[in-house]
Amino acid sequence: MVNLTPNPSYSLTIHLRYPNRAGMLAAVTSAIADAGGNLGPIGLIEQNRKTCLREVVVNAYSTEHAEKITTALKNLPDIEILNVSDRTFDLHRGGKIYIQSRIPLQSQGDLAMAYTPGVGRICKAIHERPDDVFNLTIKGNTIAVVTDGSAVLGLGNLGPEAALPVMEGKAMLFKEFAGLEAFPVCLATQDADEIVAIVKAISPVFGGVNLEDISAPRCFEIERRLRAELDIPVFHDDQHGTAIVSLAALFNALKVVQKTLDTVSIVINGAGAAGVAIARLLVRAGAQRERIAMCDSQGIISASRVNLTTQKREFAIAASGSLADAMKGADIFIGVSVPGVVSPETIDSMARDSIVMAMANPIPEIQPELVADRVGVMATGRSDYPNQINNVLAFPGVLRGALDCRATAITENMYLHAAQAIAALVSSHQLDREHIIPSAFDERVAPAVSAAVQQAAREDGVART
Amino acid sequence: MVNLTPNPSYSLTIHLRYPNRAGMLAAVTSAIADAGGNLGPIGLIEQNRKTCLREVVVNAYSTEHAEKITTALKNLPDIEILNVSDRTFDLHRGGKIYIQSRIPLQSQGDLAMAYTPGVGRICKAIHERPDDVFNLTIKGNTIAVVTDGSAVLGLGNLGPEAALPVMEGKAMLFKEFAGLEAFPVCLATQDADEIVAIVKAISPVFGGVNLEDISAPRCFEIERRLRAELDIPVFHDDQHGTAIVSLAALFNALKVVQKTLDTVSIVINGAGAAGVAIARLLVRAGAQRERIAMCDSQGIISASRVNLTTQKREFAIAASGSLADAMKGADIFIGVSVPGVVSPETIDSMARDSIVMAMANPIPEIQPELVADRVGVMATGRSDYPNQINNVLAFPGVLRGALDCRATAITENMYLHAAQAIAALVSSHQLDREHIIPSAFDERVAPAVSAAVQQAAREDGVART
Repeated sequence: MVNLTPNPSYSLTIHLRYPNRAGMLAAVTSAIADAGGNLGPIGLIEQNRKTCLREVVVNAYSTEHAEKITTALKNLPDIEILNVSDRTFDLHRGGKIYIQSRIPLQSQGDLAMAYTPGVGRICKAIHERPDDVFNLTIKGNTIAVVTDGSAVLGLGNLGPEAALPVMEGKAMLFKEFAGLEAFPVCLATQDADEIVAIVKAISPVFGGVNLEDISAPRCFEIERRLRAELDIPVFHDDQHGTAIVSLAALFNALKVVQKTLDTVSIVINGAGAAGVAIARLLVRAGAQRERIAMCDSQGIISASRVNLTTQKREFAIAASGSLADAMKGADIFIGVSVPGVVSPETIDSMARDSIVMAMANPIPEIQPELVADRVGVMATGRSDYPNQINNVLAFPGVLRGALDCRATAITENMYLHAAQAIAALVSSHQLDREHIIPSAFDERVAPAVSAAVQQAAREDGVART
Repeated sequence: MVNLTPNPSYSLTIHLRYPNRAGMLAAVTSAIADAGGNLGPIGLIEQNRKTCLREVVVNAYSTEHAEKITTALKNLPDIEILNVSDRTFDLHRGGKIYIQSRIPLQSQGDLAMAYTPGVGRICKAIHERPDDVFNLTIKGNTIAVVTDGSAVLGLGNLGPEAALPVMEGKAMLFKEFAGLEAFPVCLATQDADEIVAIVKAISPVFGGVNLEDISAPRCFEIERRLRAELDIPVFHDDQHGTAIVSLAALFNALKVVQKTLDTVSIVINGAGAAGVAIARLLVRAGAQRERIAMCDSQGIISASRVNLTTQKREFAIAASGSLADAMKGADIFIGVSVPGVVSPETIDSMARDSIVMAMANPIPEIQPELVADRVGVMATGRSDYPNQINNVLAFPGVLRGALDCRATAITENMYLHAAQAIAALVSSHQLDREHIIPSAFDERVAPAVSAAVQQAAREDGVART
């Protein structure tokens, strides 16, 4: 069991009734504590002389753990469990987003303007001046969140239906963090040609495209072709969002351990979308290509290996060996792979003041609890630990900026500017080993990233406005 | 100029300033009246001893008419026009719909449940039990509003961008009238094979598909193939929405003029999506096929004509001649064609107590003003005249019902039940020649249609729940 911290992703709402006498609530809270549960709010729903009805929220660390907590409560004398519900499932029921009208439809006059016959005038105006579609419809503020369900989180090829909850979540984040309208497009095909054709065909409604959870190496080709064929920005978040935020974190982590990017040795585990994009952006930011060891499930991507993809060959090095071999003496570990593949001993074999960014989701390459005191800086992709490398720091602002300057393309220079803007939001007196990156809820982030992206767009000559 | 009634689809908001003395506002309102404008609200924005600043809303009947009104005001002495804005364009700016989160995202706990890592549990649940996608995502309540922009309103092949304002309007209507989430899918292809493939590919996100403004005869093939290949309801509103509401209106109009469906002679002008669907549903409802004369731009669709499409051949009759020939002595005219193709004289040539449903949008086959007193019942597709044959009476309830019983298909029996349910909402004491159909804002309509559709779904064995 690697996942030891109770957290809201496994949390329960429990309704229970017990005789209204001293010590009963204490028995409940003790039982939860003994079972390793983490108590949230305790509500009092009803109380009379004889009984108490309460609602308690408890975080667990797994489904089994949640059941263990429930069982512990059921075994208490005089406690009646009325209902146990899983808060994460409750929250997803019915979906997480909805569509709303911006305009009331309360009279025939409203209908005559918003729909027929008035809408016909708007249709004709767009037909005559095609650019007006950006102003007179949702297009100018709307993003397609496109997936084929082939690489859902770290969970694999679950298909388009199972990917939908993630895409809805992404749409929420675009809205909450950047005021953008985003809609899930989950495709029932994993053929690159078909995906390119479909995204092109649906593009009239959208001002930008965010590709999501599409497996490598198809994601590289799909992104490249869509960028060539569409005149709206195309952003593959798993690549570039991850790369931007990783680089931002690394900028600040290097300050904490007093090392510089051009001298450190870096191990990247995972040669999929994120790993390749991180490696490319690191080189662009000043890291030395020959000091980057990229690993996949077979270990170091060595030039001596055969049948490497184009992207892997780009980062192949002379050395060979296992991930553990690569990590001996390394300054930085960047994990964008699978749970639990790094042991505490391997971490100990790294250089002094190592930086460990274990970003596999939902369970990291190594649990922070196991090594937090043995590294210089520890970061994960999780919201329930310090130093969360969370793409939400990048993608809302990147697309906000790209849409606001009506960029015709996304450029690598935008990524670098965005990473610098994010890193700069942690001031030198705030910076420490548990605070290398702004909070996902820091409201300065999206505007700063948007401004940086628009600056880069102007430098690169891709801003239309 | 056939369009003579000022209406909100051509309306202006005018800000004007004038000296604060008696008679100035009267001069303004007189000038507007003399120019044929229709005054809406008159607001007072600011007033002091010297000047008045007012906002007036004025309906016109065309863009030119709106300019004429503005010019009349500009020519008044001492009146300063500060701003004139087109209310329909104002209303469309930025688009008419937006996406909203159902759940607040205010803490790391919220993120951990709605997004990673918690969302991973939902993805796995759907992967294991695919039907759960209906409950744990937006799918169960979400409609794709699909067009290729080939037949936008009555305006023709304007393309996908120019069609978007209509699809957004449709999404608003689905929301306002049936609580459904609907999202515009405007396709940059008019190839039937591609449209079928794309709609299938994007279908994982949607609980139903509403086809819209796709030209005949491709719309028939696209609908047929999607129905065969998808297990969610597919509804082509231009066909079946129009047919349902037309039939509902006809049921009641026949009561007003005391004729019966099995004895009347009917002219349908327009052999596109709507015309064919109306003819089919009329036959299903009891009209005699040989007493229906369907016309297209070449006149009566006669069996002697060559190169008829399959759908036109279905309704070809022995007679031949012009539209005017067909209408001589006819009881009913149903127009789903183009503006102004019927003259008052042709209307006069119909049988006594004729029923005229001139539904071309935005401008009818004949303006009601010209013939209202010369027919038994007059109806149009417009919201600014009595007896609006408005699809909004059908499509929200049809899809609400189909989704609520998780219908695997849409059946013709549903259309008949829906039409009967709509007609039944006009009680015998309310029924008259200017009230044959409920208002679009009658809140009983969508629930009644939904219930009728679910009843039909159970009769036809297509209801899953």
